[in-house]
Amino acid sequence: MKKPTAETVMPPTAGQRGPAEHDRRAQIIEAADAYFRHYGYNKTTVADLAKAIGLSTAYIYKFFDSKQAVGEAICGKCLGIILDELTKIAHAKRPADERLAEMYISIARESERRFFHDRRLHDIINIARASQWQIAKDHQAAVLELILHVVAEGRAAGEFETDSSLFKTCNAVAETFLLVWHPVLLEERLDGLEERAAEISALVLRGLRKK
Amino acid sequence: MKKPTAETVMPPTAGQRGPAEHDRRAQIIEAADAYFRHYGYNKTTVADLAKAIGLSTAYIYKFFDSKQAVGEAICGKCLGIILDELTKIAHAKRPADERLAEMYISIARESERRFFHDRRLHDIINIARASQWQIAKDHQAAVLELILHVVAEGRAAGEFETDSSLFKTCNAVAETFLLVWHPVLLEERLDGLEERAAEISALVLRGLRKK
Repeated sequence: MKKPTAETVMPPTAGQRGPAEHDRRAQIIEAADAYFRHYGYNKTTVADLAKAIGLSTAYIYKFFDSKQAVGEAICGKCLGIILDELTKIAHAKRPADERLAEMYISIARESERRFFHDRRLHDIINIARASQWQIAKDHQAAVLELILHVVAEGRAAGEFETDSSLFKTCNAVAETFLLVWHPVLLEERLDGLEERAAEISALVLRGLRKK
Repeated sequence: MKKPTAETVMPPTAGQRGPAEHDRRAQIIEAADAYFRHYGYNKTTVADLAKAIGLSTAYIYKFFDSKQAVGEAICGKCLGIILDELTKIAHAKRPADERLAEMYISIARESERRFFHDRRLHDIINIARASQWQIAKDHQAAVLELILHVVAEGRAAGEFETDSSLFKTCNAVAETFLLVWHPVLLEERLDGLEERAAEISALVLRGLRKK
């Protein structure tokens, strides 16, 4: 199976404009990423960015509506990588319960890594959620899609119960995923994230399996 | 059964001092509660409080270490009421699964009510969690105790499975309770809280029941 890339999984993020394929766009995103990581998203203006890259502010506005649009593109890149990993797990040829359990652990590990080793990116993702950026909603929807895929396959294979509504049940599963990646929850309880992920997934999987 | 009161359920909150029983203490808490609700916790100083009540700042410090100690007492009162309600449900003579389902709905309803009708109190509870006040930890521990009580009874009655670790399983259940009352999660998704609570509790209860 072809490994999906961030581009195949994530739709283009909100607030971009101008020609779709353009080196300048990628260059702006990359420079902004480095700049935000160093100085923080909130403290950076589009003028700061333009100066750092050596472009005019007007030129940046050719590609992005606003600073938020640049932030959404960066979040999209990062969440795209997480989603790639989840997509790979969700489509593996393994029992559905193993795939779901691995999805919890994968999200928990990636969140922990980002929190400890890439704090500025963690902060942007936090802003994206708190400000209800489109990218945060898209990501949540994409994760729900993957859960629906795995649970539907588990039901078809006779592994999972089929009495409850597929959609309601998967919605509830998606909620429990939040517990291992929501930036604010992570900040509150740093210890034992992977252990918590395992406890939660064990309970949820017992809820999914056929009696 | 004697209905437990906030006093019987909640331990005294952190940072209080002076004689335990004292009308002045209750009077300070009540006045501070009204004042915080009107002006907000962050914008109020102990000096503002003292002035509003007609006491000296030094007199307030006879009973409370700090503004936070007053805040913890107010949170304690509010969370004590929620805990009273949960305790009543947890100790009712009904099947364990019905009790747990009602606990989810009760928490969701109370959180929603507070969010829409008592926003300043919601804000103090948010600060208590974010700043890791002792009262927030005590509350989380007290909710876990109630869950342990109900699940242990459900196991003893042959209603719930007994293969998994009681403590790990109840920990996971307590995590899912967060989804319906965490102040930040509430702010992000106001719609359909009770419906979400029902979906989550249905999944969790299937995970608890005996196969």
